[in-house]
Amino acid sequence: MMKIRIIGSGLIGTSIGLKARLNGFSIEMVDVDERNARLAQDLMGSPGSEAPSIVIFSLPTSQLSLVINREFALYPNSIFMDVGSVKTKSQLTIDAIPSLAPQFCGSHPMAGRESGGPEAARGDLFEGRPWILCPSDETAEETYRGIRDFVLGLGADPIRMSAHDHDRTVASISHLPQLVSSLLARQLQRMSPERLALAGQGLRDTTRIAHSDPHLWREIISMNREEILPLLHLVQADLAELIGKFDDPSKIEDFIRSGNDGASLIPGKHGGRSRDYSYLPIVIEDKPGQLAALFDECAKVEVNVEDLTIEHSPGQFTGLISLALSAEDGEKLSRHLSAIGWKVHSLR
Amino acid sequence: MMKIRIIGSGLIGTSIGLKARLNGFSIEMVDVDERNARLAQDLMGSPGSEAPSIVIFSLPTSQLSLVINREFALYPNSIFMDVGSVKTKSQLTIDAIPSLAPQFCGSHPMAGRESGGPEAARGDLFEGRPWILCPSDETAEETYRGIRDFVLGLGADPIRMSAHDHDRTVASISHLPQLVSSLLARQLQRMSPERLALAGQGLRDTTRIAHSDPHLWREIISMNREEILPLLHLVQADLAELIGKFDDPSKIEDFIRSGNDGASLIPGKHGGRSRDYSYLPIVIEDKPGQLAALFDECAKVEVNVEDLTIEHSPGQFTGLISLALSAEDGEKLSRHLSAIGWKVHSLR
Repeated sequence: MMKIRIIGSGLIGTSIGLKARLNGFSIEMVDVDERNARLAQDLMGSPGSEAPSIVIFSLPTSQLSLVINREFALYPNSIFMDVGSVKTKSQLTIDAIPSLAPQFCGSHPMAGRESGGPEAARGDLFEGRPWILCPSDETAEETYRGIRDFVLGLGADPIRMSAHDHDRTVASISHLPQLVSSLLARQLQRMSPERLALAGQGLRDTTRIAHSDPHLWREIISMNREEILPLLHLVQADLAELIGKFDDPSKIEDFIRSGNDGASLIPGKHGGRSRDYSYLPIVIEDKPGQLAALFDECAKVEVNVEDLTIEHSPGQFTGLISLALSAEDGEKLSRHLSAIGWKVHSLR
Repeated sequence: MMKIRIIGSGLIGTSIGLKARLNGFSIEMVDVDERNARLAQDLMGSPGSEAPSIVIFSLPTSQLSLVINREFALYPNSIFMDVGSVKTKSQLTIDAIPSLAPQFCGSHPMAGRESGGPEAARGDLFEGRPWILCPSDETAEETYRGIRDFVLGLGADPIRMSAHDHDRTVASISHLPQLVSSLLARQLQRMSPERLALAGQGLRDTTRIAHSDPHLWREIISMNREEILPLLHLVQADLAELIGKFDDPSKIEDFIRSGNDGASLIPGKHGGRSRDYSYLPIVIEDKPGQLAALFDECAKVEVNVEDLTIEHSPGQFTGLISLALSAEDGEKLSRHLSAIGWKVHSLR
């Protein structure tokens, strides 16, 4: 049995182990925190005694330099990867050990949960998620392919990118949102708990990531400072402009609209370019069998339902279902359902 | 049957109607947008012909003055409420009609969704949510009690507050988060869609409300400008301080920690009974007829699907559908589908 050795038994390391174990690898979990290491190892069963085919560093990047020499000395024929959040800095550590560089490939799984630790781990954490691979110029093709195939086995979607490109990207999609969410959340310290009890889902969503671990984020933000700072300056300039024109309603509308435009660029789901669907609203009775009858009609006229939402409340007499369809299918289904008496509303 | 007349068939107006209908009221939906009015009325059934006991203005505050005289002339014995987001400004409109003032009580339900329109309405939108009531000095006690009891019937938690106090509170918990979310989202316009496809849940949550309607928010923000502007100045000062100390990791840690502190002041959920659904993941083939077949099975064993999501990628042969069901129905359906060969995963 091939073995994987994972240094770091937190959420990511343990999740990797869980899935790799399912894939038939034997797993060795290592952690300076003995409790975590034991718990994680318990989840994996006993590891074999052979040398690992892959050693994975799933620990803060600042600790990589503390263990990498030991691991390379122990397993000179293994391949190595890390999973840290900033890639240019971890690569510097590797570049300092020229003999190791061909056997190393930096990586960053774009997956996580709010809760950490081996308890929060799950084998399907990476399913369908992007996993960025940042081979350096020194990384051997064989190393890269080994890491890529392993990541594919975890259900992830490997994406090759330079370390620099990675760091610039995560500055925008991860590090800046973290700082902005914290910036908003810290304002709440001035409010009375009684008033904050009135907060709705909007405030909760916007400040959810403000709950993140300050120690972990201190390292991430500091390591990627050069990429983040220019973005903060852009935010600062935009904020100054908003404040400067705050008595002009049309400027406020423009500002909110530019937020719409930015937010709508985020694809619905990974890999998915948001497709242009038509939405057909249909009022149905809220009882078992209604959906089945509706989908029977969809099947009869051979339209493919791409997505749907159901809006109804417990105990309500009617519900509204919106079907996402291609424009063509939408027209076809609308005509068909109207003809046989369903309460169909205009396609939008 | 007592009647409620609702001017405005958007998300809030239609949601009020849905729940009031369940409570035994007859509902008359009015809207300048005929399509919305028809859809909303379809959900309510036919209204009675009697005068309404309550007339509810669920429209932009700027339009209140266009309809209030007409409504008061038509129904001089009704009581009146609005549901606008800024209360001092709507009260000014009412104060200009002294004979109306005793029959009017301003209000603001602290509930909403990022999608609008009657399609997004749901009768349980206000369940367990705060609903702020701002009677003026002129509001008759009888009017206040009538509105309060109606709001209680919608499942909301009425909270009495002055219009000024309301406007100051929502500036912090609603209007500032909206502007900050838009501020972050507009930065994304500089990114390539390919890179944005790597975004995780954090960015999506932080920018969710950036999808809000620019026209609606232009009015809300402008009307509450005086309360919001000082908050923007505080954000500006905090941001400048962060940027000024950005090369000091311990200051970054302090900053993230202050965000923790602020975010943790938000209580779990306001009085909210979150509905406990079980989620049953089922892998289906992505082709016409599969959903029909699935819902046929749901109907056969008489389970009621409360909600569902479909996850699938273009060009993929399979999709994952998650059905939201009561725990009991979830168990029943899971057993049934597994027995006849569907790819059912563990209920969550």
